[in-house]
Amino acid sequence: MSRLDALRREVLEANLELVRRGLVVSSFGNASGIDRETGRVVIKPSGVAYDQLTPENLVVTDLEGHPVEGNLRPSSDLPTHIALYRAFPEIGGVAHTHSRHATAWAQAGREIPCLGTTHADYFPGPVPITEPMTAAEIATDYEWNTGQVIVRRFATLNPSHVPAVLVRGHAPFCWGPSPAEAAHVAVLLEEIAALAAITVSLNPSVEPLAAALRDKHFKRKHGPDAYYGQK
Amino acid sequence: MSRLDALRREVLEANLELVRRGLVVSSFGNASGIDRETGRVVIKPSGVAYDQLTPENLVVTDLEGHPVEGNLRPSSDLPTHIALYRAFPEIGGVAHTHSRHATAWAQAGREIPCLGTTHADYFPGPVPITEPMTAAEIATDYEWNTGQVIVRRFATLNPSHVPAVLVRGHAPFCWGPSPAEAAHVAVLLEEIAALAAITVSLNPSVEPLAAALRDKHFKRKHGPDAYYGQK
Amino acid sequence: MSRLDALRREVLEANLELVRRGLVVSSFGNASGIDRETGRVVIKPSGVAYDQLTPENLVVTDLEGHPVEGNLRPSSDLPTHIALYRAFPEIGGVAHTHSRHATAWAQAGREIPCLGTTHADYFPGPVPITEPMTAAEIATDYEWNTGQVIVRRFATLNPSHVPAVLVRGHAPFCWGPSPAEAAHVAVLLEEIAALAAITVSLNPSVEPLAAALRDKHFKRKHGPDAYYGQK
Amino acid sequence: MSRLDALRREVLEANLELVRRGLVVSSFGNASGIDRETGRVVIKPSGVAYDQLTPENLVVTDLEGHPVEGNLRPSSDLPTHIALYRAFPEIGGVAHTHSRHATAWAQAGREIPCLGTTHADYFPGPVPITEPMTAAEIATDYEWNTGQVIVRRFATLNPSHVPAVLVRGHAPFCWGPSPAEAAHVAVLLEEIAALAAITVSLNPSVEPLAAALRDKHFKRKHGPDAYYGQK
Repeated sequence: MSRLDALRREVLEANLELVRRGLVVSSFGNASGIDRETGRVVIKPSGVAYDQLTPENLVVTDLEGHPVEGNLRPSSDLPTHIALYRAFPEIGGVAHTHSRHATAWAQAGREIPCLGTTHADYFPGPVPITEPMTAAEIATDYEWNTGQVIVRRFATLNPSHVPAVLVRGHAPFCWGPSPAEAAHVAVLLEEIAALAAITVSLNPSVEPLAAALRDKHFKRKHGPDAYYGQK
Repeated sequence: MSRLDALRREVLEANLELVRRGLVVSSFGNASGIDRETGRVVIKPSGVAYDQLTPENLVVTDLEGHPVEGNLRPSSDLPTHIALYRAFPEIGGVAHTHSRHATAWAQAGREIPCLGTTHADYFPGPVPITEPMTAAEIATDYEWNTGQVIVRRFATLNPSHVPAVLVRGHAPFCWGPSPAEAAHVAVLLEEIAALAAITVSLNPSVEPLAAALRDKHFKRKHGPDAYYGQK
Repeated sequence: MSRLDALRREVLEANLELVRRGLVVSSFGNASGIDRETGRVVIKPSGVAYDQLTPENLVVTDLEGHPVEGNLRPSSDLPTHIALYRAFPEIGGVAHTHSRHATAWAQAGREIPCLGTTHADYFPGPVPITEPMTAAEIATDYEWNTGQVIVRRFATLNPSHVPAVLVRGHAPFCWGPSPAEAAHVAVLLEEIAALAAITVSLNPSVEPLAAALRDKHFKRKHGPDAYYGQK
Repeated sequence: MSRLDALRREVLEANLELVRRGLVVSSFGNASGIDRETGRVVIKPSGVAYDQLTPENLVVTDLEGHPVEGNLRPSSDLPTHIALYRAFPEIGGVAHTHSRHATAWAQAGREIPCLGTTHADYFPGPVPITEPMTAAEIATDYEWNTGQVIVRRFATLNPSHVPAVLVRGHAPFCWGPSPAEAAHVAVLLEEIAALAAITVSLNPSVEPLAAALRDKHFKRKHGPDAYYGQK
């Protein structure tokens, strides 16, 4: 099997994982992957039902977003994915959902504060939210500019450590070294968002997790001193 | 298969879709469709369990609500469906549910504000709510008058653009070009209502989505410049 | 099949319906039925897993609560069921659950106001809540006295019209002409309680449904002018 | 089958029960058991998918936490389990989850008040929450010290009567005479936490359950006068 065919299968599987985990309503959700050697991006076609997806009908584009294989239109969010792949060379997959709780935080215009160790295991601080887009950014190249507001938000953040963002008024974008890991972040982000929503309803003035505890948990799973899981 | 038989199958499928999506508790829910050429309406029979529905036991009526085929009584909400078909000639299907979050907004007496792009993909503004019904409207021809308060609410709204309404103190009615699309709106409306409920709990003073972003999303999917999905 | 054997099957089915509908956590839930001719009551045995229930291992008692068939202990809530059967001669089945939202209203010490037509289709007013039990009522014959606080709460209510109650700090008891109908009320009460909880979070000062609309819906389904369902 | 093999099966089953009940997201959850005669502890390996678990790949350690059988690393939470087994000689199993509502209370920094009889059937008072950990406790032997803050919280509590704790900012730990009973407590704790969250949203100033009613329910199921279930 060629590397591109393997990527097609990984991207299909990541899209289906989003559905299996209940993160996708209607066709609101898409996952993609990139082959860094060739710069080929594989993404879900636009508005196609998930049970109709096959490795073969996924769309392959280059890093300009031009289709190179397949007859279907790519997801309308492709330019956002492309913007992330170009700005964050360390990532290999992107997952976008409108999962319920993460989307509600995005709609509320609030970053998700780090309120517990579940969150700290995945994010070393709040899940950031983008600034509002200007009317000009919305009018022209909207999806590409959605990527740009994300990239600007990460001017001082490390996308390898912070694997997701809330696009204000819209929904989350998640990423990782592979399509599978991007989808996994989408699953965890939804859980973290739900936990945080209940937490602030129980204690509206709750303080973020103490920095020492937050950092301890993040480093249990990330970096040179990680000791979670099997070697 | 005759056109009417095809419509029976479509209406059955729309009713079952409401159940599969968890929008129906007990027998609170019904979908109908209309054949505009003959003016025949096909609707669920009243109080019949969903797993007993067949294309054959659906009820066929004319646009006065008189049964023309079938021995079962039509859904008690038939006059509301009829009122919508008569006032909105562009629609081909109607779906009514008591889905949890949409019904809660109706009970709370609040329209659902447009708080995010998920909402804007389907509605170019708030999901409207009807005015209270008068005692006289309730006493006589209640279900027909339920249709009339909806129609009055749409005096300045386009039912092709705004495919649902909350009947105050009751629940949503949804519609579309076909029974399947009406059921699809019911599914999305419930998700939009749930998103909005969590959003206002996270930020009680949240502002509606900026008009530029709202209109961009609506027009991605509707009208001459739509570019979502396959051609 | 004898009448008692038929009742055993009905009671088993009602217990399993509570489980299938997700109303039962652990063994918190039980349904019973009565044969009014013989005064025999059939009820779930105490603390037995639902997947171990058979028509044969249900417990049969008389209206004093004395076992007349079976080797297992009856549900510890039997005396509450008995109290209801003795005070409300028109009922044929009782269902008790700790379903999540109905129980939360009971714990909050609030009756469930009638906020919408879904509620009014089943209850012609609030779902009532009992007064606190005294220390003496708790110390001796607790379960029988649980029935007595319910009966006192119904001094001015008609149990045929109001088919459930919240026992304060505890959970709901539901009833109906048969075990199946009691279980059906338990399902609807949970939905009504969930709708009301979301409604009051969206509008804390929401007013009860207008009396005209409330009575219209109740009478669509109950009494001589009912016109819902098949004849 | 040896006693240790039987324990392996019990621990596997308890881990799978946590998953079946929806208490585990990703790999956030683990159950263990102890053979008190030999002091052998059986626990889930770290970061292994639940559908890959077998009795054979569970990890066996001594009461110092040293592996005595198996090639996989134990759950990183092992030292917390060990601390509990050493401090609470009456327990035979421990279950740890990040279940949604219990974790939200832990994140909110609130003990769960006893608001109803469902709670009182399992806990004779609030579900306690630990004090914050110091920076030194976090820096070194974090998981062991997590056990120590639990043990300190129980200086005046009886772990046989209070079978769970919320670790502040983290999540619950539950225990019982066996792995199965520890997992059962985890299931009930999540339900109790959800009930309490809805209850305080419906009535923010709700009072704890009256002591007489609370004690009545606890003693129905625990101690010499228990009369719930079969003998």
